[in-house]
Amino acid sequence: MEFDLIERIRRHTEVHRDDVIEGIGDDAAIVAVPAGRELAIAIDTLVEGVHFPPGTSPADIGWKALAVNLSDLAAMGATPAWALLALTTPGGDEAFFDGLARGFAELATPYRLALIGGDTTRGPLTVTVAVHGFTTPGEALLRSGARVGDVVMVTGTLGDAAAGLRCLAEADASPYAALVDRLNRPTPRVSAGQALRGIATACIDISDGLVADLGHICTASGVGIDIEAPLLPRSSALLTHFVEADALDFALGGGDDYELCFTVPADRAGELSSTMARLGCGATRVGRVVEGSGVRVLDEHGGVYEPSRTGWNHFAA
Amino acid sequence: MEFDLIERIRRHTEVHRDDVIEGIGDDAAIVAVPAGRELAIAIDTLVEGVHFPPGTSPADIGWKALAVNLSDLAAMGATPAWALLALTTPGGDEAFFDGLARGFAELATPYRLALIGGDTTRGPLTVTVAVHGFTTPGEALLRSGARVGDVVMVTGTLGDAAAGLRCLAEADASPYAALVDRLNRPTPRVSAGQALRGIATACIDISDGLVADLGHICTASGVGIDIEAPLLPRSSALLTHFVEADALDFALGGGDDYELCFTVPADRAGELSSTMARLGCGATRVGRVVEGSGVRVLDEHGGVYEPSRTGWNHFAA
Repeated sequence: MEFDLIERIRRHTEVHRDDVIEGIGDDAAIVAVPAGRELAIAIDTLVEGVHFPPGTSPADIGWKALAVNLSDLAAMGATPAWALLALTTPGGDEAFFDGLARGFAELATPYRLALIGGDTTRGPLTVTVAVHGFTTPGEALLRSGARVGDVVMVTGTLGDAAAGLRCLAEADASPYAALVDRLNRPTPRVSAGQALRGIATACIDISDGLVADLGHICTASGVGIDIEAPLLPRSSALLTHFVEADALDFALGGGDDYELCFTVPADRAGELSSTMARLGCGATRVGRVVEGSGVRVLDEHGGVYEPSRTGWNHFAA
Repeated sequence: MEFDLIERIRRHTEVHRDDVIEGIGDDAAIVAVPAGRELAIAIDTLVEGVHFPPGTSPADIGWKALAVNLSDLAAMGATPAWALLALTTPGGDEAFFDGLARGFAELATPYRLALIGGDTTRGPLTVTVAVHGFTTPGEALLRSGARVGDVVMVTGTLGDAAAGLRCLAEADASPYAALVDRLNRPTPRVSAGQALRGIATACIDISDGLVADLGHICTASGVGIDIEAPLLPRSSALLTHFVEADALDFALGGGDDYELCFTVPADRAGELSSTMARLGCGATRVGRVVEGSGVRVLDEHGGVYEPSRTGWNHFAA
């Protein structure tokens, strides 16, 4: 049974890569890393009822399980290459597996990402994906390089996914489809991450929320960060359906956006804005790196704003 | 919270490796594969109540989650290097995490295996490990190279783990500690797998049961395999506590043994027996590769024996 399921997913995601010596079907895959490249590796699990609501379509689950991992590669500036998928499900329903495979393949295909291994087990619904991508020695984007005076920027818009989750509680969520779609089908900023190599001084993807994730950059870099709340990029969908205070809290602490947040020397910020606009996601200056520690959020008067949420805590949720 | 837990496990498993450029603590790990080596990658999940009984000690869970993955590397003849651990648990109990970390580290340390990444999520207890090991181009042990006339051999003894699982149902399992230990603390045959490089024509590890796993070699190699039931190596613990018919069924179909089963040209079998004896696990000739398809089990009179179990099916279990 195990091989049938993984085999089904493989068929949806078939891609030929010279660096895959042995793909699915043996005890392990055998792959070759190109000369002169290093390997970025990440693993992330989605649990039903924690990372996606019960009732999420299998295609959305397949997409999101890969997206959150590709987002980790994006935050390193890595080029995606291979993935493994470990799926635990209560049963073997055919439509579920086909749906999950389709969603996974939809996102994998444009990146020529090869599924090289997997495991299927019986149990409560959880999906774990491990991804591998290539980096050039010394060019990976770390969390530890932010310097006082750097500008802080984010791609895309913030808060939509958390707002989408809130909207799912409504009897009819269809007016909020744009927000729900951002929750279920996050776009990993892979090209944006690659464009940051050699320019950004630190980078992270926003999974737990802007303030929480910037906190990791502060800790790793030994700096503080001041965010200017009025600068935060928010979508028209978010601002249409939510009052300003909620929209701001979602943007600061909602999480699940999978945008990139990065620091960059002030004299490179303009060039990056243009690059990111060409890539379709855009990038907005939201703050700056300062001496000290931790993240402060400043309101339009320069006073300190206290967000009501500071990020998801999976064990406290 | 996520980082605290993985960080705790990392402390138990700390090992310095020059090929780990960035370990735990960023969005992805960065590693370097040595020049001239390829990478073997496997992933496997253990689910509470499916792959280990409720009540299994956290240390045993940590050990086994790594062991079943190292066994996949062993079956390829690969040298272990790095692992990632994705843990889903209902809560954040400190003793549980310390126990799991200790069990994982006990097995990882002798191999100098580095934990380079992970994820902790809230949900029903499941443990997914992804492992990476090195192979030399062209030397990985595949399932597809068995040739008619080859001898079929297995390391160690068969059936103990399945017998151990049966014993756990007893009110007092202490007389069966040797069998239960084989269930909870399987020994991946890493050195044995490395010794098979360039000699074995096909290899697989026994996770689903001897007959089921040899069936994969038959399919991949386009051959049949005849097993001689009287030759199957069984431990004295198994033969002491179970009647012959049960002991034979456990050995043929019980699964969870994590011994290696391999095919080898007849003129290399003696040499391999000596090598495996030196490595401490031993290896026993149990059958031969024949024309045809599928696995036949022959009794002491050369008649076909029908085992009552042919391997675990995780979805039917």
